[in-house]
Amino acid sequence: MSTFTSEIFQTETMTVPGGTETILRGGRDLFPLLPDALHGVRRIGVLGWGPQGRAQAQNLRDSLAGTEVTVSVGLRPGSASADDARTHGFTEDNGTLGDWLAVAAESDLVILLIADAALAAEHEKIFAVLKPGATIGLSHGFLLGHLKAIGSGFPAGHPVIAVCPKGMGDSVRRLYQQGATVNGAGINASIAVHADPDGHATDRALAWSVGLGSPYTFATTLQDEYRSDIVGERAILLGAVHGLVEALYRQFRLDGADPVTAYERSTESITGPIARTISRSGLPAVRAALSEAEQELFDRAYSVSYGPAREIVAEIYDEVAEGTELRSVILAEQRLTSRPMSRIGGSTMWSHSAEVHTRRGTTPAAIDPLTAGLFLATMMAQVDEFADRGHAWSEIVNESIIEAVDSLLPYMHARDVAYMVDNCSRTARLGTRRWGPRFQAAYEQIALPAVDTPADPTLIKGFLDNPAHEALAAAAELRPSVDISVA
Amino acid sequence: MSTFTSEIFQTETMTVPGGTETILRGGRDLFPLLPDALHGVRRIGVLGWGPQGRAQAQNLRDSLAGTEVTVSVGLRPGSASADDARTHGFTEDNGTLGDWLAVAAESDLVILLIADAALAAEHEKIFAVLKPGATIGLSHGFLLGHLKAIGSGFPAGHPVIAVCPKGMGDSVRRLYQQGATVNGAGINASIAVHADPDGHATDRALAWSVGLGSPYTFATTLQDEYRSDIVGERAILLGAVHGLVEALYRQFRLDGADPVTAYERSTESITGPIARTISRSGLPAVRAALSEAEQELFDRAYSVSYGPAREIVAEIYDEVAEGTELRSVILAEQRLTSRPMSRIGGSTMWSHSAEVHTRRGTTPAAIDPLTAGLFLATMMAQVDEFADRGHAWSEIVNESIIEAVDSLLPYMHARDVAYMVDNCSRTARLGTRRWGPRFQAAYEQIALPAVDTPADPTLIKGFLDNPAHEALAAAAELRPSVDISVA
Repeated sequence: MSTFTSEIFQTETMTVPGGTETILRGGRDLFPLLPDALHGVRRIGVLGWGPQGRAQAQNLRDSLAGTEVTVSVGLRPGSASADDARTHGFTEDNGTLGDWLAVAAESDLVILLIADAALAAEHEKIFAVLKPGATIGLSHGFLLGHLKAIGSGFPAGHPVIAVCPKGMGDSVRRLYQQGATVNGAGINASIAVHADPDGHATDRALAWSVGLGSPYTFATTLQDEYRSDIVGERAILLGAVHGLVEALYRQFRLDGADPVTAYERSTESITGPIARTISRSGLPAVRAALSEAEQELFDRAYSVSYGPAREIVAEIYDEVAEGTELRSVILAEQRLTSRPMSRIGGSTMWSHSAEVHTRRGTTPAAIDPLTAGLFLATMMAQVDEFADRGHAWSEIVNESIIEAVDSLLPYMHARDVAYMVDNCSRTARLGTRRWGPRFQAAYEQIALPAVDTPADPTLIKGFLDNPAHEALAAAAELRPSVDISVA
Repeated sequence: MSTFTSEIFQTETMTVPGGTETILRGGRDLFPLLPDALHGVRRIGVLGWGPQGRAQAQNLRDSLAGTEVTVSVGLRPGSASADDARTHGFTEDNGTLGDWLAVAAESDLVILLIADAALAAEHEKIFAVLKPGATIGLSHGFLLGHLKAIGSGFPAGHPVIAVCPKGMGDSVRRLYQQGATVNGAGINASIAVHADPDGHATDRALAWSVGLGSPYTFATTLQDEYRSDIVGERAILLGAVHGLVEALYRQFRLDGADPVTAYERSTESITGPIARTISRSGLPAVRAALSEAEQELFDRAYSVSYGPAREIVAEIYDEVAEGTELRSVILAEQRLTSRPMSRIGGSTMWSHSAEVHTRRGTTPAAIDPLTAGLFLATMMAQVDEFADRGHAWSEIVNESIIEAVDSLLPYMHARDVAYMVDNCSRTARLGTRRWGPRFQAAYEQIALPAVDTPADPTLIKGFLDNPAHEALAAAAELRPSVDISVA
């Protein structure tokens, strides 16, 4: 579903490869429309105070300030997050902080942002206390996947909608704050309407998305969202990046580079100049920025890694679509009750983070052609796999490119890649650890040993002429240019 | 089920940690008993001519030579294996080579040794042509797992038995041939009786096992066999070894070793002196062979890698037991119809195989203490996980230790590790590629960076006092000492 209609907002038609998509351009000028668009929702309850809960609760409260719509946060008894929520103005005293089930029971829109494992275990308790006709809100499709896996479903009579920001919670808040000075700055989001008993579900989803600060909102289905979201974080957004930099760091070291140089040519090149170039000028600009000799190496690197990367992306997609990946996550959660997950941040490369970061002012990293070839091949492998599986172009470029270069890579640039893996959501963390090593092995055992093979002109043409560039350009026009920083 | 009774063979009771197991000692002196033990089976049909089919058909034919029991081979129309079967004496002319369904239809014992994917796709055709009361024979539990996954089962009225050699097909044939001069040489096997409508299934399984040349036969269930077999090949038998040598080779290179030395300290040390020492003298002998300073490094290496390895073995076990691993294999088989599996033998290390092999005569590799610590920790992680999950001790030590040191590692020593992965069964190959990189990442990102941490005395004591050593010693007494060679 890439088309939708609104009674409140002025939608636009965006030209994408092979057709059009309906989209809604965001901006603070639309905030006055939010109460009407919410169609009777006067209390919004955000359950959970993880990165998304924390960002969304604040953004919605700020966007709805001065209206009769209130935003409350609901936490489980004894939640360690309560103090932080209070610090950010959600307090029992002003009636915007309470027990999760109490908040769920009094809200007209209940946004479920607790951890996946908690959602899997506790959704029935939440469903049981909902007001008649209250809207169920999700920010990704995990719960749908879980309900299907256990042969269950959403309760009848309730609108079920999703608004899925294509970026991590920290970015959702930070870019929203930039929107105070640059109207329309924010993180793009998809919406999905899964159940619409009263006919107003689409407008409520659009209001929620605009309230989060989305520069533009596009439509998908909960199933497509779930698949692209879970696959994306296992591939180019997290898993593949981690596997890639582990492989490249060792490769550069074995080729004689000192640790700092090896770090700069692998991780730093991706999280710095490659991400910035894509964000500002698109994917072909990365190759165009290289000298002729470097382009030749880029082409060879691209050619040997596209196939092995595509093979793994296809495997991940199958596992997610068929439900095995989700069952594996649930099995892992059960093991974690008796044995905590080990951390991976001890890998040698990360001990050089501080030194590399210090050099940024004086010796900024360049685009390394080998690194760029492998990274862009993997990104395009995901783009092409999503296109073959029939995803909307807005979803493809947001989930494969924009989320990477405007949200996750800047965060990795500020911290490091392993730190991010060790500190992201459990589902993403488990997925990264399952699939990152697969990408690493494919680069080490298949791609890199063959990198002296002449480039494949068909693959390079497939890259340069890829319809994704047109879709990315169309999406880029909808977002004002802001500098992405991470505190 | 670790006990059984026989009407024909003289069983023994073997003392194992915490109890006893019934076993049958093999040997060529028992061959005259085989026709009686087969209880009416006069035609044995072996379907498939992969490594197991080829070994089992020849061994059974040789063991039953001069009796009224015939062994035939059944192949699918147009099978590329027909010529090789004819070369080994199975021909249309002498009535021992035919179409697989025709052979299945005329046999009293039908041994299913076609590839897993073919078995999954075609088992109903085979079941449909069986003679009334014909015995269905398996050599591992894959089909049971598949039938459960699709909600199906074996046809009623047929005995269903498994004889599962704890070694690759090449070893099953090679060690059987050594048995001509050293009575009792061979590869141990487990038996499982899954259905026994006429009460003679156990004796038929024992006869089949003795006919294959098993030094000793122990009992398990099809489910336990399936789990330990599939987990074992993904862990210490193939996947973990591959991940380990990839990690260690790079580590030694990064520490300054030249490629040949790095190869010798990693792969060669495991497939050569470590495997030989375990085969002859058990696991603690590997540590005892080291100097005091080397033992200290061994202990540190063991301590940092046992936990991460155990974490992955437990994950694999869950995935196999819950069926997700099997579903992943089936999804992979479907992708392979449109896209062949890439090979991994191009990884840099293997380009030095020839040189390392040449040096064996003059400069044989020693036991490297770091390599030994990681390898033995991983082996014990599998042993302990299997013990916790309730497997019989014979199954534990055969599937975790004996199969490794007496079958797979000698083969890897003759070829190399990646060659073996690229050339083993599809289920094993897919599994190795799924899990090998996970072990590699755990060694690289968790174990090796922490190797300077003082050893954990509890873990080292757990190794030295492990009940597996007693079980391994009991098993070793049942097998004559032969030198394991690979042509």
